[in-house]
Amino acid sequence: MKELVFGHKSPDTDAIVAAKAFSYLQNQLGYETEAVALGEPNDETKFVLQHFDEPIPRVITAAKPEVDAVMLVDHNEAQQSVTDLQDVKVTHVVDHHRIANFQTAAPLYYHAEPLGCTSTILLKLFKQHQVAVPAKLAGLMLSAIISDTLLFKSPTTTPEDEAAVKELAKIAGVDYQQYGLEMLKAGTNLASKTEDQLVTADAKTFEMGGKKVRINQVNTVDLDEVFAREAKLRQAIEKQNRENGYDLFLLMVTNILNSDTRLLVVGEPQAVVEKAFKTKLVDNKADLPGVVSRKKQVVPPLQAAF
Amino acid sequence: MKELVFGHKSPDTDAIVAAKAFSYLQNQLGYETEAVALGEPNDETKFVLQHFDEPIPRVITAAKPEVDAVMLVDHNEAQQSVTDLQDVKVTHVVDHHRIANFQTAAPLYYHAEPLGCTSTILLKLFKQHQVAVPAKLAGLMLSAIISDTLLFKSPTTTPEDEAAVKELAKIAGVDYQQYGLEMLKAGTNLASKTEDQLVTADAKTFEMGGKKVRINQVNTVDLDEVFAREAKLRQAIEKQNRENGYDLFLLMVTNILNSDTRLLVVGEPQAVVEKAFKTKLVDNKADLPGVVSRKKQVVPPLQAAF
Repeated sequence: MKELVFGHKSPDTDAIVAAKAFSYLQNQLGYETEAVALGEPNDETKFVLQHFDEPIPRVITAAKPEVDAVMLVDHNEAQQSVTDLQDVKVTHVVDHHRIANFQTAAPLYYHAEPLGCTSTILLKLFKQHQVAVPAKLAGLMLSAIISDTLLFKSPTTTPEDEAAVKELAKIAGVDYQQYGLEMLKAGTNLASKTEDQLVTADAKTFEMGGKKVRINQVNTVDLDEVFAREAKLRQAIEKQNRENGYDLFLLMVTNILNSDTRLLVVGEPQAVVEKAFKTKLVDNKADLPGVVSRKKQVVPPLQAAF
Repeated sequence: MKELVFGHKSPDTDAIVAAKAFSYLQNQLGYETEAVALGEPNDETKFVLQHFDEPIPRVITAAKPEVDAVMLVDHNEAQQSVTDLQDVKVTHVVDHHRIANFQTAAPLYYHAEPLGCTSTILLKLFKQHQVAVPAKLAGLMLSAIISDTLLFKSPTTTPEDEAAVKELAKIAGVDYQQYGLEMLKAGTNLASKTEDQLVTADAKTFEMGGKKVRINQVNTVDLDEVFAREAKLRQAIEKQNRENGYDLFLLMVTNILNSDTRLLVVGEPQAVVEKAFKTKLVDNKADLPGVVSRKKQVVPPLQAAF
């Protein structure tokens, strides 16, 4: 009986690739499976699939119309899965997240490890079952690991993740450093976005000291590429402030490769920002080394300074 | 930091042995662990420990007074574990049951397979990590597999369980057929037990359809000998239900020689039991030919009927 294999909703590269890899492995072991996805691939994943000439997976939202049993990768929590998870039997799970909101009626195969990426665990399973990883699949899997670990910069990275990428790179014949940077860049794909999109995409509003403060964060692998558009970004922010009555706008441009943020500050009071981050704004800008989190590293000191 | 390793409450041979085996393996891999138990060993397990000259493990009920982190074997459901499971971090689980009423805040190592016995999975882990199984531990592990599979008579038995017993028997230098029968018989020594002991010995609690369902299994070589004590068994079960708030209690009395079970059902809803097993309860009893496995042949249909 055929089973579907899929990763979580709003799929990232690991969710798409781990489904393909586990489906391939299980088919080699005698199962009949198809890898599908619970959403369209994002820009990064599209780049990966195109690079290795791999088709975009079919998108589903429910499983029961097609199959009685499924295999989950890169997730287990029901709200991240197909809408009808309770109507099908989960026979296999391979994951690297906590376990929550997940239960079965019968015993199953469940393999989770606290590693940086599902695809790292999958490489171990290929070896355990002595199934060779085809070159193309190796390329996809190393992409997933680089994506989840931000090229080993994320604190979730383990030595096993790094070793897996190096091993897969040999099979795929890929310079993983150069390719990884290219891939992460494709994921930030800011070139295709307008300045209005860049300053609003993930923006949140805060009330601080009677002021309306707006903070947005944009991820990039190239600060200079973003700040080449500084004049237009300022105009877009000024328009936002004018139209929505924001007193102060902080645009965090975060370099995901070295975990630094450059701040562009438009509006008043600028002095409070300088106090908050113990820095001097030069031409409305300041570099904040080691700052990547709005919630943990920007909002609290700013609130305190107000 | 030391961690405790333990199987489920009302421990059977696998619960005791798997804790010892996984603790041994993890210590070889550099962890600092101690195998403990959540209850006194039953007659079968005592026979096993005595046969291989292995000490009875220390019994605990709560973990937090001693450690911050634990490893679970042969179970995952919170109600089958230490009373303070929510206060400690679960870092590892090795199990062969369904997953239910289990959740963590952080990623963990979780290895489950739908095999007959946790100790079969553990033998695979020893091999994966290239750690040799000492002769005495091999004897304990094959005992656990014979116990869980009723010497390969249970439908939960897989070819991997049989192969594991044969492999472990060579290491332990044991005639597993002769030893296995002896061991199973030692476990059926029911005459020496009170009715209270008979209804609690290997009992497990399940949440089904909002009801608290308690299921116990007693192995015997003579059904009539057990049901000669039916009136007192009913009283003991009623007392259990009253004192612990169980809605429904199923006592499985299993003849290990011909692989049949007679069910004694006390509490409500009885109709769900009839639906689950497509049978009529007569005087709260029903014969279930060919049923020997709580996990595979009783819990899933009962869950489905609820």
